[in-house]
Amino acid sequence: MALEKRLEENISALSKIGSDPTGGMTRLLYSDSWLEAQKFVEGRMKEIGLETSFDEIGNLFGRVEGTKYPSKTILSGSHIDTVVNGGTLDGQYGVIAAYLAVQQLLETHGQPLRSLEVISMAEEEGSRFPTVFWGSKNFVCEASKEQVATIEDSNGIKFVEEMHRQGFDFASEDKVRRDDIEAFVEIHIEQGNVLEMEKLQVGVVNNIAGQKRYTFQLKGEANHAGTTPMGYRHDAVYGFSKICSGVIDRALAEGDPLVVTFGKVEPKPNTVNVVPGEVLFTMDCRHTDAGALNKFAAEAEAFMKEVAKEHGLELEIDLWMDESPVPMDESIVAKVEQAAKNKNMKYKVMHSGAGHDSQVIAPHYPSAMIFVPSINGISHNPAEATNLEDLVAGVEILTEALYELAYKE
Amino acid sequence: MALEKRLEENISALSKIGSDPTGGMTRLLYSDSWLEAQKFVEGRMKEIGLETSFDEIGNLFGRVEGTKYPSKTILSGSHIDTVVNGGTLDGQYGVIAAYLAVQQLLETHGQPLRSLEVISMAEEEGSRFPTVFWGSKNFVCEASKEQVATIEDSNGIKFVEEMHRQGFDFASEDKVRRDDIEAFVEIHIEQGNVLEMEKLQVGVVNNIAGQKRYTFQLKGEANHAGTTPMGYRHDAVYGFSKICSGVIDRALAEGDPLVVTFGKVEPKPNTVNVVPGEVLFTMDCRHTDAGALNKFAAEAEAFMKEVAKEHGLELEIDLWMDESPVPMDESIVAKVEQAAKNKNMKYKVMHSGAGHDSQVIAPHYPSAMIFVPSINGISHNPAEATNLEDLVAGVEILTEALYELAYKE
Repeated sequence: MALEKRLEENISALSKIGSDPTGGMTRLLYSDSWLEAQKFVEGRMKEIGLETSFDEIGNLFGRVEGTKYPSKTILSGSHIDTVVNGGTLDGQYGVIAAYLAVQQLLETHGQPLRSLEVISMAEEEGSRFPTVFWGSKNFVCEASKEQVATIEDSNGIKFVEEMHRQGFDFASEDKVRRDDIEAFVEIHIEQGNVLEMEKLQVGVVNNIAGQKRYTFQLKGEANHAGTTPMGYRHDAVYGFSKICSGVIDRALAEGDPLVVTFGKVEPKPNTVNVVPGEVLFTMDCRHTDAGALNKFAAEAEAFMKEVAKEHGLELEIDLWMDESPVPMDESIVAKVEQAAKNKNMKYKVMHSGAGHDSQVIAPHYPSAMIFVPSINGISHNPAEATNLEDLVAGVEILTEALYELAYKE
Repeated sequence: MALEKRLEENISALSKIGSDPTGGMTRLLYSDSWLEAQKFVEGRMKEIGLETSFDEIGNLFGRVEGTKYPSKTILSGSHIDTVVNGGTLDGQYGVIAAYLAVQQLLETHGQPLRSLEVISMAEEEGSRFPTVFWGSKNFVCEASKEQVATIEDSNGIKFVEEMHRQGFDFASEDKVRRDDIEAFVEIHIEQGNVLEMEKLQVGVVNNIAGQKRYTFQLKGEANHAGTTPMGYRHDAVYGFSKICSGVIDRALAEGDPLVVTFGKVEPKPNTVNVVPGEVLFTMDCRHTDAGALNKFAAEAEAFMKEVAKEHGLELEIDLWMDESPVPMDESIVAKVEQAAKNKNMKYKVMHSGAGHDSQVIAPHYPSAMIFVPSINGISHNPAEATNLEDLVAGVEILTEALYELAYKE
């Protein structure tokens, strides 16, 4: 069967598992559809001749031994879970692409020199329980038993009970991180509009942006909109508008890859004829360089304090997420780029502004990512889509990269 | 009894009627407490020797004939209704002050040359039914039967039925506006912080600001906050921040009496990690000069369109309130100002940024207003308050002004 047909059939079959009557797909960690999906993938892995196994918490592996360097492993894959009402590509495309690539390689070139392994990770989205990267963290021995010991989902069902119900458990305390992984390559939809805007087929990801997320409270004084002269006001929305426009102007001047978003704005009392006394707002700020991210965030905070002071407002700052950028491995990135060149793909080397399993894995094993275009940049939505030829191109470049990594001396 | 004691006693006694167990006072049009309050005021009017009457819809009048010019009437008063959980001064202070001033004058100087009349208007706030200035509009024969024919309160009780229940009805179609009113003076709390900030006792109001109220829809594109480069965004909140800061900067440069407020801001989807695709926001814009108000609003609209275009956003403009400024009568304002001087009051001539019954009456009869300070500018709230000495000073200046108008040749 041609790759295109195989890809279509696999996405279509796997997407039936967890299909949500309220729209899209909902396949949450340790749900029955989640286990059914892992079992489906296990079946497909076996069909193409991989030896399968689950780890303690439910990550699935499918492996073919290397002929010459069996203890050197080239790994590829992504996560099997989805957000609520998610699409059919975020996560599972990377799992399917990995085993189809291995299938292509085995059919064309036989057994590899190095071992090839596909991973279908248990969880990445944080959509059921308040924890993220549960799969990749367990893989690199960073899963915290304490962190999930008491958490539950929105229905009050405990994480630990659900994990046990599906036959999984915590890794033992003395579990040691594997030392055989020579490379990890994850393929994923872009979830942005860069490749589409620039009419490219593939992104070769060399960095996952660090991100800071803040919530601010700007406090002034609520006053009558008619009877309070402009000079006697402490207008929190005016202060916010100075802050937002000033910070974004600075971000535009600084240029890519910096992005800054003021996504939430909630004035009080939020009424047409009252000068707003308070505004709660958020800032999401990302950059691929830790120093540049820290510098920009510090300058933004200083600027905000200045604006607040100038307008007689009080500013409360709450930085509640602060993740460092994660660079991908230069040599693996170069291999993926070479694969794109070999295949005559229109590609660019780019960073990821979104978080991925690769950011958990890359600090421990040489890693890289491949992006395929997202139509209109949409993801986490039933409308999430990628043109079939782009999905095929993604598998082809992944296949080529794995060939470079697993079959070449 | 000294004026101070009288004032305290009257405010305290009238405030018991409609006292709200959930806070402050709630005395809505045609409620039982509303009628009880009008009856209370009628009783007090009678006690000081005024001849009382109700008009068709429930405005209460208390009158003493002039000795020399009985067909020339000097009128004072305000409204008896309150907002929900309102304070003890907005409206009723102007009614009490009017009959106490007349009492002082009758006690000191006997019958006036011109007739003196006190009006306790039925409704101004628009807090029960979706209509405002019902009292003053009926007084000047501008009350629209059609406008209230089918309206009801939040409990589904019809305006017309409640009016009938309390014994009132529409004025006849051929009712003619009175031609005996020579002057109207309304005293009211400022509901702002100007007098307090400037340490003044009294405001002599020469104008009620016109106001425009808008709702805007600014539409861009919702995008992933991590994967969408700044250059590929159509960020509605960024556009709003440019509009808000730009328009307010212009208003500050223009200076008093212009005021501009962006009171409501509602982005969509209003989430930390999504570039806002839409913002609904309001603008409330007031000025005492119609030309200046129109010019500023037109320039603000043009500026907004420019910003929207520059940021690739769509702007929908809905101007849903457009009221012209109402100048007070120069000669009555001068009389009130003279009264303030006679009484050695610290005063300023100022405009009202809030709406009042006087704006309905002033186009038909020579009118002026007097303001007393509002502590912290608070009104429409149980915390609404004015220092007793300021309330007394208000009655004194009103008494002096009515003396000038009704007792002098």
